[in-house]
Amino acid sequence: MFEGHCDYALLPQGWRANVRLRAGADGRWVEVAADQDREGLPRLGRWVLPGMPNLHSHAFQRAMAGDAERYGHPDDSFWSWREAMYAHAGRIDPDSLHAIARWLYTEMLEAGYTRVCEFHYVHHRPGGERYAPPAAMAQALLAAADEAGIGLTLLPTLYQRGGLRDEALAPRQLRFGCGNDEFLSLCAGLAARADGARLRVGAAIHSLRAVSGASLQALLGEPFWRGRPLHIHVAEQRIEVDACLAVHGRRPIERLFDLVDVDARWCLVHATHASASELDAIARSGAVVGVCTSTEANLGDGLFDLAGLRARGGAWGIGSDSHIGLDPREELRWLEYQARLASGRRTVLGGPAHEDVAANLWLEAVHGGARACGAVVGGLRLGADADWLVLDEDDPAFAGAGPENLLGRWLFAPARWPPLAVGSAGRLRVIAGRHLAHDAHARAWRSTLARL
Amino acid sequence: MFEGHCDYALLPQGWRANVRLRAGADGRWVEVAADQDREGLPRLGRWVLPGMPNLHSHAFQRAMAGDAERYGHPDDSFWSWREAMYAHAGRIDPDSLHAIARWLYTEMLEAGYTRVCEFHYVHHRPGGERYAPPAAMAQALLAAADEAGIGLTLLPTLYQRGGLRDEALAPRQLRFGCGNDEFLSLCAGLAARADGARLRVGAAIHSLRAVSGASLQALLGEPFWRGRPLHIHVAEQRIEVDACLAVHGRRPIERLFDLVDVDARWCLVHATHASASELDAIARSGAVVGVCTSTEANLGDGLFDLAGLRARGGAWGIGSDSHIGLDPREELRWLEYQARLASGRRTVLGGPAHEDVAANLWLEAVHGGARACGAVVGGLRLGADADWLVLDEDDPAFAGAGPENLLGRWLFAPARWPPLAVGSAGRLRVIAGRHLAHDAHARAWRSTLARL
Repeated sequence: MFEGHCDYALLPQGWRANVRLRAGADGRWVEVAADQDREGLPRLGRWVLPGMPNLHSHAFQRAMAGDAERYGHPDDSFWSWREAMYAHAGRIDPDSLHAIARWLYTEMLEAGYTRVCEFHYVHHRPGGERYAPPAAMAQALLAAADEAGIGLTLLPTLYQRGGLRDEALAPRQLRFGCGNDEFLSLCAGLAARADGARLRVGAAIHSLRAVSGASLQALLGEPFWRGRPLHIHVAEQRIEVDACLAVHGRRPIERLFDLVDVDARWCLVHATHASASELDAIARSGAVVGVCTSTEANLGDGLFDLAGLRARGGAWGIGSDSHIGLDPREELRWLEYQARLASGRRTVLGGPAHEDVAANLWLEAVHGGARACGAVVGGLRLGADADWLVLDEDDPAFAGAGPENLLGRWLFAPARWPPLAVGSAGRLRVIAGRHLAHDAHARAWRSTLARL
Repeated sequence: MFEGHCDYALLPQGWRANVRLRAGADGRWVEVAADQDREGLPRLGRWVLPGMPNLHSHAFQRAMAGDAERYGHPDDSFWSWREAMYAHAGRIDPDSLHAIARWLYTEMLEAGYTRVCEFHYVHHRPGGERYAPPAAMAQALLAAADEAGIGLTLLPTLYQRGGLRDEALAPRQLRFGCGNDEFLSLCAGLAARADGARLRVGAAIHSLRAVSGASLQALLGEPFWRGRPLHIHVAEQRIEVDACLAVHGRRPIERLFDLVDVDARWCLVHATHASASELDAIARSGAVVGVCTSTEANLGDGLFDLAGLRARGGAWGIGSDSHIGLDPREELRWLEYQARLASGRRTVLGGPAHEDVAANLWLEAVHGGARACGAVVGGLRLGADADWLVLDEDDPAFAGAGPENLLGRWLFAPARWPPLAVGSAGRLRVIAGRHLAHDAHARAWRSTLARL
């Protein structure tokens, strides 16, 4: 199992010097101790950070990232993008999903994302016919994560109707549909393969649009969901809020809280258009908000009030969602910048735990993200998933830097280079900035894109 | 002189196939011709773009980028950042400026910026005593640009007072101060070294705060300024607009137009808080707006209404300013994203010339940026500065891409890699993603930072 020693490591309480790190066989930290001699342990490097959980991914969308930036018609919006996405989804099969996801997870590790929540709703053949085995698409994701060596929280996703008024699924949505029993059996079958920090299985509710209140309550009544992560897309677009008000007289987050006992198992993805009282409810519940900075900007969703959530003591993390952005630094940097532009101030999302805004952003997103992945705790501490990054101490961007400004330079300033080494669940996956299987995974990705 | 052939080049009218490119001895294009046989010319690569002008730089600030992200006090703002910046400026001398600027320009070329406007106001020793020679700091910049091989538009900057009510310079501003005669003589001496596409000399007015109306009018009455680029910081912070209204009863951009005949020589840097009628005036004048996306976000300045300027036919370009960001793709991407977040739509800054938003953003910023640099035209066309990038056709991010989606992927999607090859003013400077003098320039930067 992995063990080593570094000059500095970013622990939950901040930078500590001379840190020993050791992972157990289940991929979790069994030793994290500062002020230790090296005593023959391998030197990991000068700067070690906890790996970043990516709490929201639709892997198949990686293969269309950047290809929907040329409509140019005046009504181009989230909704026209969604049509392009449906057309793309219609072309994906288990083989292509495997190659795309494996390359995506390889890129994620190289960028510093060490685990991922896969919000997986493309279950069946394009017309809705089941694959044999029925979990073929989910299994493609399991294989991709295993081969790339990224910690996976698989979230099979319940998708049952076309809109809030029980509209039928549209033809292009038939691939996504499952009844509750079928869904539970799919999840239970996958959960049998769970493997500590390497694979967890929870579930996602696609949205309140796609699942009725009655169905949601029936599903969550099952004891299977105890202690498992539950994710939902909610309040991403204004039009969604308006529709929910029109049908239910409640905003989507209010409606979710009406329907179910939202607790710390939950991750509310987007929550972009949360009202002040909805932020209160989220913070009280212990749920994590999943902010997808680049995707939400690319789709013109709007700005989530992260400063407001933080002021209420709420938890949050980041997701790359459509994978239009894959650099956790850019996701965090622009969250901070959006808060600055809204307030006219600087260093808005810093403190109270850490004056260093970059350290604060990184640690909060690590800790919230770990919870969204289904871990009890996150970061470099006992019992957390053994995920880490080593920064490149030879990067000229770090010349003369110490613990007080290292992360400010890495996260805000032009340090173009990716982490030097990256490990997930106790296993080293990236060396010298490159995934150990980079070339093989890139080859399969290329031939898959040529085929699509 | 440089010549070659590529599969595709992004000309002002869009992608063209089989393009021959040839630069003259003065560093400008003398041949740009599509649909040509290769005929033994070197193959440059599959995808060639015009290089991006960086229309706003304070080189010395590169050495503090990322170090001012940890104040965390509730009043942290542009103004507290400015105090940190003054303290940093106080430590810079010609030797350190040379090493910092040379490394910065090396990084710029690797990122795809092929020329830079240096808004240079740190003229004298910290107490205001003149260097011998008096232009020692400017000469450090000339040497840095020459050694890095980036096209330079040097803008010695007039800075004469501490505020709109003729306040004296504060002690920490004494390094910046020049009388009009001294300033003109400094500029004329530097202009004698101008060298086609490699070195142009114009001037900057630091701001209306720092130069009185009378002094500005006296200076610009000199025939020396005919045909030279003139830049000014304007309307970056709301407080600046309020102060100008209080003292002059006019907003800063209105006041500038009252004082001088703003024309196509001018670059209005920031212009963040321009009113609708100020946008009208800018668009009519032919002046270029210099948008500094990352810096303006980092300093919480506010959002410039680029969609509004474009609707009026106004010109614009991008600058890295404080160098907190150094990737032209990120500057452009987040301009588009800010426009999407403000409007709730997608592909906002596309068209009318190009449906491909990425191509449109790149070309508009190239053409506006070239004007701000003092060139008559920009881009891949006859008479423009011979600046180019070759993208890495082997990047897995481009698998299966054609002219219709190549730039969408490069600018919006996670293509982490820098351009493969970069040239400025007819000379190749970056090969395989690395500046030819990367190591030597990084070494000097490192030892300078250790000293500061």
